[in-house]
Amino acid sequence: MRVEIVAVGTELLLGQIPDTNSQWLGEHLAANGIASHFHQHVGDNHERIVLAFRTALARSDAVIVCGGLGPTQDDITRAALAEVMNVPLERHDDIVVSIRKMFGSRGRPMPDNNLLQADVPRGASIITQTRGTAPGLICPVGQKVVYAVPGVPHEMTDMFERAILPDLLARERAGGRTSVITSRVLRTWGASESALAEAVGERFDALTDDSRVTIAFLASGIEGIKIRITARGDNAGHAAALLEEEERLVRRLINDKLGDIIFGVDDETMENAIATRLLKRGLTLAVAESLTGGIIASRLVGIAGASKWFQGGVVSYASQVKFDLLGVPEGTVVSADAAKAMAQGVRRVLGSDVGLSVTGVAGPEEQDGQPVGTVFVGIALGDAVEEVALRLPGDRPRIRSYSAISALDALRRALDRLP
Amino acid sequence: MRVEIVAVGTELLLGQIPDTNSQWLGEHLAANGIASHFHQHVGDNHERIVLAFRTALARSDAVIVCGGLGPTQDDITRAALAEVMNVPLERHDDIVVSIRKMFGSRGRPMPDNNLLQADVPRGASIITQTRGTAPGLICPVGQKVVYAVPGVPHEMTDMFERAILPDLLARERAGGRTSVITSRVLRTWGASESALAEAVGERFDALTDDSRVTIAFLASGIEGIKIRITARGDNAGHAAALLEEEERLVRRLINDKLGDIIFGVDDETMENAIATRLLKRGLTLAVAESLTGGIIASRLVGIAGASKWFQGGVVSYASQVKFDLLGVPEGTVVSADAAKAMAQGVRRVLGSDVGLSVTGVAGPEEQDGQPVGTVFVGIALGDAVEEVALRLPGDRPRIRSYSAISALDALRRALDRLP
Repeated sequence: MRVEIVAVGTELLLGQIPDTNSQWLGEHLAANGIASHFHQHVGDNHERIVLAFRTALARSDAVIVCGGLGPTQDDITRAALAEVMNVPLERHDDIVVSIRKMFGSRGRPMPDNNLLQADVPRGASIITQTRGTAPGLICPVGQKVVYAVPGVPHEMTDMFERAILPDLLARERAGGRTSVITSRVLRTWGASESALAEAVGERFDALTDDSRVTIAFLASGIEGIKIRITARGDNAGHAAALLEEEERLVRRLINDKLGDIIFGVDDETMENAIATRLLKRGLTLAVAESLTGGIIASRLVGIAGASKWFQGGVVSYASQVKFDLLGVPEGTVVSADAAKAMAQGVRRVLGSDVGLSVTGVAGPEEQDGQPVGTVFVGIALGDAVEEVALRLPGDRPRIRSYSAISALDALRRALDRLP
Repeated sequence: MRVEIVAVGTELLLGQIPDTNSQWLGEHLAANGIASHFHQHVGDNHERIVLAFRTALARSDAVIVCGGLGPTQDDITRAALAEVMNVPLERHDDIVVSIRKMFGSRGRPMPDNNLLQADVPRGASIITQTRGTAPGLICPVGQKVVYAVPGVPHEMTDMFERAILPDLLARERAGGRTSVITSRVLRTWGASESALAEAVGERFDALTDDSRVTIAFLASGIEGIKIRITARGDNAGHAAALLEEEERLVRRLINDKLGDIIFGVDDETMENAIATRLLKRGLTLAVAESLTGGIIASRLVGIAGASKWFQGGVVSYASQVKFDLLGVPEGTVVSADAAKAMAQGVRRVLGSDVGLSVTGVAGPEEQDGQPVGTVFVGIALGDAVEEVALRLPGDRPRIRSYSAISALDALRRALDRLP
């Protein structure tokens, strides 16, 4: 199966938004061993959408269309699909009912425009919505198939995982595919891509196109550098065994040369790593943030059940807040001592076991005689307190984000050093 | 002229990197009034690159190819271009000399691989490099043209501005174009896409393909819904006048039917709207966040110079922090009264003029007998305090993000109501 992705929306052609959907789909198709040779973007124009679909169907076996299923006049994917299928659109009353219900649950009347979302090309089947209003569609075209999903990322990913991927894998099995692909991502923070490549280089070079495992690096900005290991086995158990063996090898190479830089696997974030460690030890955390301004706290609160280990935080952006509320001694606020005082202060004020703090210069101007990118992290563990000094590159948003993840990583390592 | 963008690289298909080049090119073509109807991604495979080029040349007048001009075995754009042009590749000695010079200036020997970058399809002209090694190419194909540039963004943008855009505009003038295009985005929060479409529907329906202005809606998640107005004039002044007139009309339609939902234009964010209003009135702000956990504070701190109007915040995630630090009366913490007490409390504790608070249930579990999505916003302006009750849809991340932007929007409206 070769799957082509067609992202619909004039805003993509005009560069008004990035096309994150094609990237996400490309990554997830590859992770499941499904080939994709082409992607297209096309605008909200009937003839051109039809042409894009026909082009895709001529050179690929299946097409995933994202976007153009909304309720407005420029959402015309349904009509273009009907033309390519050579069938009429039919209004489905059950979809009308479920869209009306969705609006009702939000206490709003349904505008008539939304009825368009209940139109389905004859012969297509429905991918039910669980998060929005427009259902997805599975449209047979001869022996090939077009899947249509909304362009809203979380609606798209939900429909892909729930309906499209299972359908694609079933078609691959029906087509004689016997191998099973499985993959895992190791997530690292604190080493450069070239250092990682060097650490794993020997193993990387030993793998050929015929190998059953592959290793790929993926620089992911403030999410660190990911290492994807993919294994192709004769069945699920075989693939899992190959993957496990390869993971053990890669982990050993990295750990030997770069130390403890792997903080999680797959979707595990740095804050998951923190949560796990705090829960295991029965500790609670509070954070004091200056330049990060709440990024750390908001990432921690993103974890369901954070109330078990997270007390809260103080965003001490103004220096006076550092002095008055956190008890930082008056004077320079960009220093290791200020970071330590902030960590101790927030631990005391919010009544937690652990205090984590960040202070520094995000720019664009220098502060307290310190250049942009100067950052201090404070960690108060009980009565002990320690600091980490950082020099971070980039502009204001990058320095703020890198500060947040670096502070969490410093806390992860400090928690691991506890007896 | 219709220009198609073809981005070459297997890493794009695998989702290992985002395709920022197509977005940048799309934006800059549109800003210059040059149409682009299709984009493609294709991997590093000769037959498929040739097919992508032929597909693009069949449906567009010009093609910009990014990537595949490097020195490795994967870089095969030059050979694919030669095949599409039906000409041989010829090595250009002057390019060899300049590549060798580039390496020399960095004190490194030139690997032989780099000789490939001196191969040019017969009949193509060169876009000289000023930043890297691979030159760009301008390849005539009948009456059409393919521009090939490296995938490295700053090399690509340099060649686009220096060589491709002037060539495209010259071709457009030769083809009789006299018009100039300009556009603006209106940013809204608080109305559904369909409600907006209905509000502007009458005007939208009156516009035809021949109209000099176009209107498009763009749902942008927690950034709200954007309305893009584009105008095509005989010259820059004419285009600007058309745009201004259309903007006035659209603003009136929206304001009459949906009220004050436009918070900014183009790149202005909700926090910019807050910053402008606070600065104008000389007020300072502090925020108390429960379920948003620092999202609001971190967005505000994202604005350079926020220290002029932002004091900081308290992330009162644990109820005890609400009681002890913010002075919320013991009892239920998901209520309008708790939100008001939090807003007053943070205003007092951090010493600001304005206090903004959010409390609510992000899920996955209900809390204090309130269902997931129940959110209360508190706004303390001097001694006055008010609340806004919300019911938000979605999962935990969406409820948290929507709470943050809704709270900022409520503050925007409250500041606008001040005498």
